[in-house]
Formats: sequence, C-alpha cells, structure tokens
Amino acid sequence: MEKLRVVLYGVGAIGSRIAKFLLEKNGVEIVGAIDVAKEKVGKDLGHVLGIDKRLGVTVSDDPDVVLSKVNANIVIHSTTSFLKQVYPQIAKIVEHGVNVVSTCEELSYPYATDPELTKKLDESAKKHKATVLGTGINPGFMMDTLVIAFTGVCQTVERIKATRVVNAAKRRVQFQKKIGVGLAIDEFKEKMEKKSITLHVGIEQSIYLIASALGWELDEIKVESKAIQAKSGQVTGLRQYGRGIKLGKEIITLDLQAYVGAEEEYDSIDIEGVPSIHMKLSPGVHGDLGTVAVIVNSIPKVINAKPGLVTMKDLPVPSATPEDMRTYLKK
Amino acid sequence: MEKLRVVLYGVGAIGSRIAKFLLEKNGVEIVGAIDVAKEKVGKDLGHVLGIDKRLGVTVSDDPDVVLSKVNANIVIHSTTSFLKQVYPQIAKIVEHGVNVVSTCEELSYPYATDPELTKKLDESAKKHKATVLGTGINPGFMMDTLVIAFTGVCQTVERIKATRVVNAAKRRVQFQKKIGVGLAIDEFKEKMEKKSITLHVGIEQSIYLIASALGWELDEIKVESKAIQAKSGQVTGLRQYGRGIKLGKEIITLDLQAYVGAEEEYDSIDIEGVPSIHMKLSPGVHGDLGTVAVIVNSIPKVINAKPGLVTMKDLPVPSATPEDMRTYLKK
Repeated sequence: MEKLRVVLYGVGAIGSRIAKFLLEKNGVEIVGAIDVAKEKVGKDLGHVLGIDKRLGVTVSDDPDVVLSKVNANIVIHSTTSFLKQVYPQIAKIVEHGVNVVSTCEELSYPYATDPELTKKLDESAKKHKATVLGTGINPGFMMDTLVIAFTGVCQTVERIKATRVVNAAKRRVQFQKKIGVGLAIDEFKEKMEKKSITLHVGIEQSIYLIASALGWELDEIKVESKAIQAKSGQVTGLRQYGRGIKLGKEIITLDLQAYVGAEEEYDSIDIEGVPSIHMKLSPGVHGDLGTVAVIVNSIPKVINAKPGLVTMKDLPVPSATPEDMRTYLKK
Repeated sequence: MEKLRVVLYGVGAIGSRIAKFLLEKNGVEIVGAIDVAKEKVGKDLGHVLGIDKRLGVTVSDDPDVVLSKVNANIVIHSTTSFLKQVYPQIAKIVEHGVNVVSTCEELSYPYATDPELTKKLDESAKKHKATVLGTGINPGFMMDTLVIAFTGVCQTVERIKATRVVNAAKRRVQFQKKIGVGLAIDEFKEKMEKKSITLHVGIEQSIYLIASALGWELDEIKVESKAIQAKSGQVTGLRQYGRGIKLGKEIITLDLQAYVGAEEEYDSIDIEGVPSIHMKLSPGVHGDLGTVAVIVNSIPKVINAKPGLVTMKDLPVPSATPEDMRTYLKK
C-alpha cells in the first residue's frame, strides 16, 4: 500500500517537532516543505530540522510549485495564530484540493473571528473536496473537546469550568517571552496595552466550540488577562480568564494560568449538572508535546472526513495514531 | 419544525428512566412503546412508567405494527445484554429503516461476540439506510470511549489501565443481586460456575473497542471475576479484570470493582506513553444516570451518521443534547 504523503507548511518550532515525530512513524512520507524564512529556503529539510540526515526534500517558499508536483494527502500547516494571516495560505492549499490540519488557534473555531472569511473557506474546501481543521492541545483538546466529551455523560449541564495550570519554566523561551516572563509590572502593562505581548490565543475559540456543541447561544464572551507576579514584583507569567455569559450568568469559565514556578501542573474540568463532573489530569499535558500529538493524530480523521471546514466537535473521538499511518488512507 | 419521533423498545428499569428523561425535554415525542411483559402490553405508557399522566401511547408487543405506523426517527432499544438475543429485535427495527440506539452491552462492539451476525446486521442496516449503535456509560464511555479520547494527546501509547470503582449500595437491588451481594462465598462460587450470577457484561467489548481505535491486534483477551468479601465472609460485590494481551504483554487492563461499602467511588485512566496520562474522575458517574445520558445524547449523532452498524469510536465526540432536540434532525 502507498504511504501517506505529507507536506509541511511552516517549519518553525512546532512544524519541526511535527516533522521529527512523523519521521519516527511508518507508512508516512514527508514529500514537501514550505517556509518563507530566507535561511531555510533552498536547504534540505534534514538540515533545517538539525538532524544528521538528508531527507531529499528541499524547503521552498512557493506553495504552488510544491503542491502541484507532490500529490499530497495532507498539509500540516503551522505558521501563525491568526485567521487573517493564514487565510491566503490555507485558501491556496485548498485550491490544490489538499486536506489541511493547522495549528492556527483562530482556525479551531474560525466563525468566532470572521464568519465571512470562514464561509468562503468552507465553500472553497467543499468545491475542491478538501477538509480543513484547526487544532492543537489548547485550543483543540484540553479546554474544549475534552470538556465537550465529558458533557456526553450529563443529562443536564448548568455551568462549566476548565482550568489549566502550566509551569512556564518547562516551556520554550519563546513561549516565556510571549507571556511576559521576567518583565517588571509596568513594562508588562505597557506591552499589554500596545499588544506587543502576544498572549495565549484560543480562549475565545474554546468557549465558542463548547457553546456550539451544546447548542448554547451566548450573549457575551469576555477574555481578561492579568499578570502573575513574584514577591519581587517581577512578572512570572499570566492568568487568563475566558467567560461565556448567557442571560447575565457566567456559564462557561476557562481559567488558564501559565507562570514560572507553578508548583502543580494540571488540567481540571468541573461541570455542574446532572450528574456533576469533577475531573483532574495531573500532571497536565505539556503544550508542545500535546500539540504535536493532537495534530498528527488528527490526520486520519481529517483525511476521512467530509469535505469542508470542520472543527474538533465534528470529527470522531480523538485517538492515537497507529505505528503505521497508511492504514488510515481513505479507501 | 417537526419533533424528533422516538419509539421505546423495552420499557424495563433503564427504558423507563430514558422515557422519563425524554419527557422532560423539548422537541421530542415518544410515538411508540414496545415490550413483551404481559402486565405492560395494552397499557398506556404513562401508567407503565408510574407517572400521573396519560401519554396516549399504548405499549404493544408487536414491533411490526408499531414501526409500520409511527414513522419514527429512532428506536431506543433496551432489552438484554446479549447480541444473540437482541439480534432478531434489532434486525426487525432495521428492516423498517429506522435508526437504533441500544443499551445492549455486546452490541457496543459486536464483532467481539459474533462477527458473522454483526456483518449481517451491518449489511442490512446499510441496505435499509439505518444506523445502529450500542452504547451506555460502561461499556460505551468510561472504560473505552474516554480512554480512546485521552490517547488523542499521546504520541505513543505503551499500556493502558482504566479503573472504575462503584459503591453497589447506591445501585438498584437488581444490580446488587446481579453481582452477588449478600451471598456466602460458597454460594457465590457455585452460582458463578452455573453462570446464574450475571456479571457485568462489556469488559471484553471495551477492550476490543480501545484496541480497534488504536490499531492494536491483540493475541488474547482474558476476563476474570473475583468476589469481594466483607470480614464476615459475606460477598459484598465483585472485582472484574479484563486484560488485553499482545506478545505476552498485558497492554490493556480494565479493573472494575462494584461492591457495597466502596469508600470512594471513582473512575481513573492511566496511560503509559509519551506523554503519560493520569486522570481521575471523582466521584465516578452513577451507572444508571450515566447510561440514560449517554443513550439520549447519542441520538443526534446516530441520526446524522452514515448508515450501517457503528461504534462509539466512529461517531463525533460525545456531547450533551440541547434542551430542544429537534435542532438535530437530519437536514
């Protein structure tokens, strides 16, 4: 049986990790790599990944050239967090009739960001018989899909809370910078105002995804971020609340804490309903590790889904991918 | 918009609870009820349910008569745990082109029990454009679907263990009898040998469902039951182990404990892999409550699934059903 043919669109921190993981698996082949970074274009992918092996795949900055010659089953897309920026990239892939799994946070529930653009993408995907999914560990699993799954044992659901506590010391420096670690509080506030600190993107999307699965029409979603400070006053990370409000009542609360020195890393889900649910996952799942897993594990689901833009709630229950990935090629 | 039209096939302990729950929801109508019990046939469903209201639905023992006149969207089937016994009942429903959600434990992964019969049922369902699902809290969610969902964040999975501890004192007397509560140990052993104690059915199905989602081919499945005894020697319940074995290694372990006096009721899932997962749900979900929820919450998924026999791993991630169920009628 032929191998599953994958193109990487974006060979940054996450794209590289995904590539290395795919190289360990059977029945799958990386047949193309796209990136705009000048220092990567024209280089062999093995070199870019920093592994001691030529892979025979040259990184290109021209998606049309790559996609028109490699006959890919799927593109793993990991460039930025924002729908407006990824839209032209994804639209291009879709026009080649190729499926996409993307790490773009806003794409996990793109209706929240831009319904018009989302509709256009959905229509194009249907027309070209391609399926598009945005996912990852968060948004994509911990604070949305898993929450939704637990409501499956509930007769009624009154209120949902999900908490994720991450020790930022265990994450990439890039991630630490993103959340303001090491800044004085005034610097932090200034940067927050200027939006030069990129906070976690996806809280809103997770709230929308949960609400949409439960048929809840929310009146308002509030997202609020606060610095977490050490005794010295230095910022050690941040706490982000997302609140989904209906008729003045907060019915969805997502509480994300990421800071250096978090003593216990965990994920918890609390559902008030019949029955009530109290779940704790301890330790929590490491973000990068989990995102690589969720992205790769979504490949078979996306390949076998109906064409169009899909979200995690539309796909079969997530599962780990077998050693040999070709088992899942569409029959 | 028209209401969702449901027929109950089996109005016993679980069927009645499901009926009562459906009566609380909007956009759904019970349009027929089937049961063989002489004391129920010919009676109004409201009377059979013990509620103070005529429902205008007369319990019938003739599925053909009911199904040919009520134009149902789905049948909620709850009669027995065994595939061979439910097969003719389900086959009949399917011939009427009606979808089925069943509490039959063996139907949650019927390939485990009888691949021939399963194939026949699948073919008939496809031919008559009906979808058939067996589910519940266990098998159906706690020790299989939820386990599968957690592997979705894993890059590799080495070994899986799921534990469910139930305090039998909180369950129906019928359930307590089923698991041998109150027997002397000799009586218990004797009844076990004669198979006159019906133990929990479904451990094997859960193991098969997990293995099938992960693409694991098991060499052997062992199911073993032991009495749990009080200091007095009296049986207080039982502990049932299911083991999925590959190349001599136990890679799936399901440990179900149901006994009077269990101090802590919980569900836990432990996955050895990258990353490892340690989840605890405390308290665990009450069996009857959870089964009613899982069955009713599966209705929209089944109605919108492709025809044929499906298992929980084939359907979208479980979720609670909105107040008004007609939102989910197939477009």
